[in-house]
Amino acid sequence: MKKTKELRNLINSEKLGFIMEAHNGLSAKIVEEAGFKGIWASGLSISAAMGVRDSNEASWTQVLDVLEFMSDATSIPILLDGDTGYGNFNNARRLVKKLEQRDIAGVCIEDKQFPKMNSFINGQLQPMADIEEFCGKIKAMKDTQTDDDFLIVARVEAFITGRGLDEALRRAEAYRKAGADAVLIHSKRPDIMEIEAFMKEWAGRLPVVIVPTKYYLTPTVKFRELGVSLVIWANHNLRSSIEVMKQVSRRIYQEESLIHIEKNVATMEEVFRLQGAEELEAAEQQYLPASHSGTNQGI
Amino acid sequence: MKKTKELRNLINSEKLGFIMEAHNGLSAKIVEEAGFKGIWASGLSISAAMGVRDSNEASWTQVLDVLEFMSDATSIPILLDGDTGYGNFNNARRLVKKLEQRDIAGVCIEDKQFPKMNSFINGQLQPMADIEEFCGKIKAMKDTQTDDDFLIVARVEAFITGRGLDEALRRAEAYRKAGADAVLIHSKRPDIMEIEAFMKEWAGRLPVVIVPTKYYLTPTVKFRELGVSLVIWANHNLRSSIEVMKQVSRRIYQEESLIHIEKNVATMEEVFRLQGAEELEAAEQQYLPASHSGTNQGI
Amino acid sequence: MKKTKELRNLINSEKLGFIMEAHNGLSAKIVEEAGFKGIWASGLSISAAMGVRDSNEASWTQVLDVLEFMSDATSIPILLDGDTGYGNFNNARRLVKKLEQRDIAGVCIEDKQFPKMNSFINGQLQPMADIEEFCGKIKAMKDTQTDDDFLIVARVEAFITGRGLDEALRRAEAYRKAGADAVLIHSKRPDIMEIEAFMKEWAGRLPVVIVPTKYYLTPTVKFRELGVSLVIWANHNLRSSIEVMKQVSRRIYQEESLIHIEKNVATMEEVFRLQGAEELEAAEQQYLPASHSGTNQGI
Amino acid sequence: MKKTKELRNLINSEKLGFIMEAHNGLSAKIVEEAGFKGIWASGLSISAAMGVRDSNEASWTQVLDVLEFMSDATSIPILLDGDTGYGNFNNARRLVKKLEQRDIAGVCIEDKQFPKMNSFINGQLQPMADIEEFCGKIKAMKDTQTDDDFLIVARVEAFITGRGLDEALRRAEAYRKAGADAVLIHSKRPDIMEIEAFMKEWAGRLPVVIVPTKYYLTPTVKFRELGVSLVIWANHNLRSSIEVMKQVSRRIYQEESLIHIEKNVATMEEVFRLQGAEELEAAEQQYLPASHSGTNQGI
Repeated sequence: MKKTKELRNLINSEKLGFIMEAHNGLSAKIVEEAGFKGIWASGLSISAAMGVRDSNEASWTQVLDVLEFMSDATSIPILLDGDTGYGNFNNARRLVKKLEQRDIAGVCIEDKQFPKMNSFINGQLQPMADIEEFCGKIKAMKDTQTDDDFLIVARVEAFITGRGLDEALRRAEAYRKAGADAVLIHSKRPDIMEIEAFMKEWAGRLPVVIVPTKYYLTPTVKFRELGVSLVIWANHNLRSSIEVMKQVSRRIYQEESLIHIEKNVATMEEVFRLQGAEELEAAEQQYLPASHSGTNQGI
Repeated sequence: MKKTKELRNLINSEKLGFIMEAHNGLSAKIVEEAGFKGIWASGLSISAAMGVRDSNEASWTQVLDVLEFMSDATSIPILLDGDTGYGNFNNARRLVKKLEQRDIAGVCIEDKQFPKMNSFINGQLQPMADIEEFCGKIKAMKDTQTDDDFLIVARVEAFITGRGLDEALRRAEAYRKAGADAVLIHSKRPDIMEIEAFMKEWAGRLPVVIVPTKYYLTPTVKFRELGVSLVIWANHNLRSSIEVMKQVSRRIYQEESLIHIEKNVATMEEVFRLQGAEELEAAEQQYLPASHSGTNQGI
Repeated sequence: MKKTKELRNLINSEKLGFIMEAHNGLSAKIVEEAGFKGIWASGLSISAAMGVRDSNEASWTQVLDVLEFMSDATSIPILLDGDTGYGNFNNARRLVKKLEQRDIAGVCIEDKQFPKMNSFINGQLQPMADIEEFCGKIKAMKDTQTDDDFLIVARVEAFITGRGLDEALRRAEAYRKAGADAVLIHSKRPDIMEIEAFMKEWAGRLPVVIVPTKYYLTPTVKFRELGVSLVIWANHNLRSSIEVMKQVSRRIYQEESLIHIEKNVATMEEVFRLQGAEELEAAEQQYLPASHSGTNQGI
Repeated sequence: MKKTKELRNLINSEKLGFIMEAHNGLSAKIVEEAGFKGIWASGLSISAAMGVRDSNEASWTQVLDVLEFMSDATSIPILLDGDTGYGNFNNARRLVKKLEQRDIAGVCIEDKQFPKMNSFINGQLQPMADIEEFCGKIKAMKDTQTDDDFLIVARVEAFITGRGLDEALRRAEAYRKAGADAVLIHSKRPDIMEIEAFMKEWAGRLPVVIVPTKYYLTPTVKFRELGVSLVIWANHNLRSSIEVMKQVSRRIYQEESLIHIEKNVATMEEVFRLQGAEELEAAEQQYLPASHSGTNQGI
């Protein structure tokens, strides 16, 4: 099955689905091996991994290059956190074309302005996109995709920017009419109140995606009760790797030794396995001359 | 002080120096914050992070793009694990020019053939580079660098490929005469025997760099006794992050919740701090119009 | 019809086909508008346009980026001049995957070594690829393509490197057996002798491609008589643009004026037309808010 | 002398200076060989060469990659046509850092909005940048440059967008106070009227740059009389190459022969010369083993 179809099935299913953040080919593969049915290519995580800010400091093609590695390394669908589409409708539709080429299954765009700032940094009075302009962007993207199953998720930042339920509903409905396949309702409250209020009024007009980074204490059963379609665990591979790399780097620095480290890190063999070393060895047997195959020459 | 000068001082110092692996801008910054005086841009780690094999599957300019993010995110010198220089002398000297532009302090090239294979995969009968050809490569690189302090480290794979001490010494001496600033003696034995034998015969003709991935049980005091100049902790940030991401992804998948995860991962604030959010906020105060600064923080 | 199918039809047709060199999106579009049924993405031209040598100084992904622009700008198939495949069988099969993603219709690889040198520079004693190794590369590429119509052309450099007809035939036959879809026989003689000799012995076992850069005086009817399938006009857009840019730059420099230049260069309107300005204007009408469309704001 | 210093001298000189458009490494080299003292890296030309529109369809890092090839291929300074700086002040200052790394001598930014549209397409009511916001951008760029001679040119689009002299002067003065090193006054009139009016009022407060694409009939002596500092011949290499490639492609298509083409295009030897083949041959003599130099010229 095509990755686009898989992602569409996941989001349209009656069952609550889950996708997990990755920020490079390696973490993407780890997400797949953990059992997830999809990958969230987080803009925050990808920029943080690069060492830059999530304010469009990396160019959109640099993000695309990361996505290509992620897609090549995995067989489950990837949903891109596509900021604002990196400009106006024209940039956004160009993005769709490039994503389809790289077998990315969908993209989520948010109703803010370029260049963007992370939603959780002093966000409350941030300007939002003009609704009509954002709807034009959605239409342009839908008209551009060549695979009917490619997914456009419209992310509503009304709560994040302090605008409340009416604005959230008004925007979600406008985006639905413009052709969005799903809406992502974002909230930075530590509880489920905003999401709950939205879900009740929304009444399932389109699948709803949520990102419980701030309201992680809410039990998942609650999301099911509310009729959420897809939960994004948005940045926890990145954040776990930050924590462990800080510890490991500090400890090696202090101890000037690997002796207490070795048993707690992945083995070299595991690194090679994740890279697909075995396939390459088999391919060498198949494609390199016999005179090379015994001695590994020409590699 | 220039990064090149810092790296040269580190390797020329009487004191044993240490540098630690990083594979992207984020891990590079973590290495710096841990206290290290230099960063090892590992070819294995960079390729593994991308999700490809360490066999020149990523192009040399894709590696260069990663290096640029690493260099921009840090203020300590970076030594690149530059494989074979990605081709012949002409590719290698082109690499030097590009590294200098991106403020990389030095590069280590190894005496194998393009495309390369990781030293630890069935390495024993791998062909090595022709000595004379490799010396020409070193000369070309030295003639290309415009900053006298840029460092060329010649990595001797004689032990790795099963060729023994005489070959290791013969090659190291040839590379020294060709202009290398240091030699890296690699060994995959679980003990220090090969390195020890080399160090005794070598007698300090040039600084020696080692990578104790396999002989990590050897106490560091031994490296000091032998007169080693620089130790590379070669891939432990990558390997620790693999281990933790596997655990975290699996746990979130099974529990369908972040509740047991949140306290063990870096906070969002720590992510923002590592990205340099504070500097950007201050810059917005300085450079955005007053009319924007209160309300338009999203720009 | 898919581009791959179009290229396959062109090369398999009874009629002699022609493809013309391009080196960027613009020249590719010009080739299409001239009436050609296919584009030759010349390695020499692409590198020369970049200002580097045709010796793998640009990385293979930098070439790929150029190809993507070329493919996006046109609707006819592109055959890539893919050097040696940029490494061993593994690099070559990776290339195939990337080319398919970018809708490139085929690739021609040559039986020389990496990094390559242009065939016409002092070529006569250049080493060639080991036949068995080259056949393994062809097999790996054929096994990798997912679109059956993607074309692998094996370029035989036996004549170029001074090795004669027997070697040319031996290699062409080996490549055919390995799965190549066509062979390109290259010659740097000012006459058709080598090609003619080859064609007579070859007897149509596979379609044959030729590049009459050096034997351009041979009338095309001769190629038809010999049963050639495809002629590549290999670098004449590049070479014509070099000549005219030299003249124009010199004249503007000397005259310090555009007055004698303006009437001999494409109009600004023609530049905009080639870029597709009209489509964007129409799209703005369609996707930008009414309040923007009259005034073109924000674009 | 550093390229930045050369460009600063050119623009600060009493003598009227001229720079000429290039869009890749090859055309940049041709501009240098024609005698020019500087190169205009035109946004329009670079995008057109890629086959995309001048509306930020190519990402800023894709433009940067082209610039790097241009800079590497030449020894005269390059002034980049940097659109709006590709976003806000933060994107613009990031650009400065990247340009300095690649030895680009300066950048011209224009007071419009991202994504941009070419000045000559239905431009008259386009919105301009907020003055205060644009001044903040200039300040941020000046504060970022590490080389004092790096040049920031502020391009005033007041005439282009139909706003008249007062607005042009008001903006130019604001940009001067913000730290711009020069102003570029753009006009699409077929005569010199707007420029002349500006020059008289401006009275040399900063060097003025002009782009006489539309008023090319105005004799250059007039620019000298008005006290203009630098003239940009903005897109004539591109436009001449379009014209000739159209002719050549069409003719080869129709005649199915190179016979009438060969004498009008640059020779293969000239292509190799422009690529620097000679230097590589000499380097092979110097750096390749003696055993290779006779026989292995392909390496």
